[in-house]
Amino acid sequence: MASDTHNNRGTIQQTLDDYLAQLREQSDRMMGYPAARDYNYDIIKPFLDVTINNCGDPFVAGTYRGHSHQFELEVLAFWAELMRAPADNWWGYVTNGGTEGNLYGLYLARELLPNSVVYYSKDSHYSVAKNLHFLNMRSIMIRAQPSGEIDYEDLRETIRINRDVPPVIFANIGTTMTEAKDDLAKIQQIMHDLVVPKYYIHADAALCGSFAPFLNPRPKFDFADGAHSLSISGHKFIGSPIPCGIVLALKENVNRIARSVAYIGNLDTTVTGSRNGLTPLILWYAMKCFGRQGMAERAQRSVELAAYALERLKSIGIKAWRNPNAITVLFPEPPADIVAKWQLASANGESHIILMPFLTKTHVDELVRDLQAPSTHDTTRSDTARETNKHRN
Amino acid sequence: MASDTHNNRGTIQQTLDDYLAQLREQSDRMMGYPAARDYNYDIIKPFLDVTINNCGDPFVAGTYRGHSHQFELEVLAFWAELMRAPADNWWGYVTNGGTEGNLYGLYLARELLPNSVVYYSKDSHYSVAKNLHFLNMRSIMIRAQPSGEIDYEDLRETIRINRDVPPVIFANIGTTMTEAKDDLAKIQQIMHDLVVPKYYIHADAALCGSFAPFLNPRPKFDFADGAHSLSISGHKFIGSPIPCGIVLALKENVNRIARSVAYIGNLDTTVTGSRNGLTPLILWYAMKCFGRQGMAERAQRSVELAAYALERLKSIGIKAWRNPNAITVLFPEPPADIVAKWQLASANGESHIILMPFLTKTHVDELVRDLQAPSTHDTTRSDTARETNKHRN
Repeated sequence: MASDTHNNRGTIQQTLDDYLAQLREQSDRMMGYPAARDYNYDIIKPFLDVTINNCGDPFVAGTYRGHSHQFELEVLAFWAELMRAPADNWWGYVTNGGTEGNLYGLYLARELLPNSVVYYSKDSHYSVAKNLHFLNMRSIMIRAQPSGEIDYEDLRETIRINRDVPPVIFANIGTTMTEAKDDLAKIQQIMHDLVVPKYYIHADAALCGSFAPFLNPRPKFDFADGAHSLSISGHKFIGSPIPCGIVLALKENVNRIARSVAYIGNLDTTVTGSRNGLTPLILWYAMKCFGRQGMAERAQRSVELAAYALERLKSIGIKAWRNPNAITVLFPEPPADIVAKWQLASANGESHIILMPFLTKTHVDELVRDLQAPSTHDTTRSDTARETNKHRN
Repeated sequence: MASDTHNNRGTIQQTLDDYLAQLREQSDRMMGYPAARDYNYDIIKPFLDVTINNCGDPFVAGTYRGHSHQFELEVLAFWAELMRAPADNWWGYVTNGGTEGNLYGLYLARELLPNSVVYYSKDSHYSVAKNLHFLNMRSIMIRAQPSGEIDYEDLRETIRINRDVPPVIFANIGTTMTEAKDDLAKIQQIMHDLVVPKYYIHADAALCGSFAPFLNPRPKFDFADGAHSLSISGHKFIGSPIPCGIVLALKENVNRIARSVAYIGNLDTTVTGSRNGLTPLILWYAMKCFGRQGMAERAQRSVELAAYALERLKSIGIKAWRNPNAITVLFPEPPADIVAKWQLASANGESHIILMPFLTKTHVDELVRDLQAPSTHDTTRSDTARETNKHRN
């Protein structure tokens, strides 16, 4: 793999060096987008010397050996337990991100309940509508409360007047903008009250799934709370340099649709064919390094830092707020230079910061100082509203 | 990111070291699955220190800066030119693999021609049926010739009796098993003869797209030959340690469906939300190192090595064969120990080797020696038929 000329080689190196320096610099001050950076994956770097392909179902052994299925299975088991998936009745795989996990959950729901209607709140990630369009599924958007949580009365009423079709609930366990968590206990109560015989709940836990198990009180979001499938991101709270995620589903459902998929002549239950084999290694290493205890401590620190940030912002007269136990803090959108410096995500006149592991009080204090000082730069609002929803999953 | 104890740290390192050694050893002799290994991505390794997320359309600039869109655009332009996409009328992005590119092409076709029927040959990759099922598209499987190429007479006749619905042709530019290439000139002739007013051709060029431009005669497979969209893999002939791919489509079509997607409230034209930012860097580096000339030379060497392998196999009385200019050579499935040693892919009693860049005459000669020697091991046939189709895209 020799470059054309020695000169060319120097240019390539310089281009990559400059780009890396720029990435390092900006990632140090990125408060608006959820990506933990308290990691060091030096140990994983040598694996870029080999092609690893995790194609197919990680639970099915085959003759092709260039995969990391054994690591993938350990990662899945670790998170399945944290998501309180019933022992011996779960299945999953490492995805390319939250969106793929959501696509898988909705696909499963469609196969199980072919004439269903999907209910999802207005504050859901934009990819939900895209996934539904892809899968050709009927859907109804439900109102959201000002907090971002789904409007349970609107949900109840809408399901009530559509009792001839089985409902599929797409629940947000952490909306993009306000980190609002839909409550699966309340959703199940609606099903119970309306004596709905068949329904499906998919939890889009891309943002909060990986730390919600450590919150007190524990949000009602997982398998024990009624979810049939669940998607979490790997590059947000867990911390992965490459976007990835984990999807988990009840095995009995995956097996049931395996029959319907059999007619198309294959047993590959994943969405993609060839699959990234490096991200399971990354998630495995994160799991080994942090463990359950380390993950819990990181969650605790993020929640405390969010509480600190909220108090600091309020102390200088900024109308900041956050949802209970959230690591996301919202406040009125500041001038464009501040939005740019901290890469704040904004929508509808509000910006947010997400207190991901790696951020410290020093970051918060500096942001607060910036917000306090009269802006000397352009004060036009930045056009980040479109961007906010863009960066996720 | 400290592991629990020093001891634990040692175990983690040992586990990863053992696994890497095992991957290196087996990848040196993998002849059955298409993955070039003549690469060195040391220069890319430092990028595992930062989170790169290429979410969204690479052509749309935004405020989020932790992406590698600038590299992605260079990669797309390089391959768009090789695929003879019309200047200023193409669009694309780096995918997670061939399957995602095929899903995108079929999705585009469905949006443009909502009542269409998809025609694809029996020898297509299994993911095609999966994608069609996902997208809820009508389809008809067409017979394949013994070579693996689509049966044009069956295609013509089937389209003829379904003239009330617009056809979508899913063409294989290199089938998984025999590397047969469907001829877009012949397919266009059928459309012309039957005066089909509207149709769509997607080229699944996962296997051959990246070297077909350098073959002589040049196969009829790209935009200039009538393709409306095209998917190629990055981890096969190009050589990437992480599965990836490139999808390209006519911009006028992408723009047309952008309108239909607008109602779902976003302009993200890609399939996934968050996207891998490292694979565009990998493809960029491969492009910079090899260049057009280097890619052509690698293609030439692979074709010559395939010709050599074919002659050597025939010289010891093995009924080997290959399609014209193919880098895949087929022969009757050998005993299980040989299948395992070389990780041969097999289906219907035949095995194949794919002469990817990194393989040499030494590999071929050793395989030939193994095939010549009476097998001392278990001679039951290995159950790799299922596996063959598994590893791709």
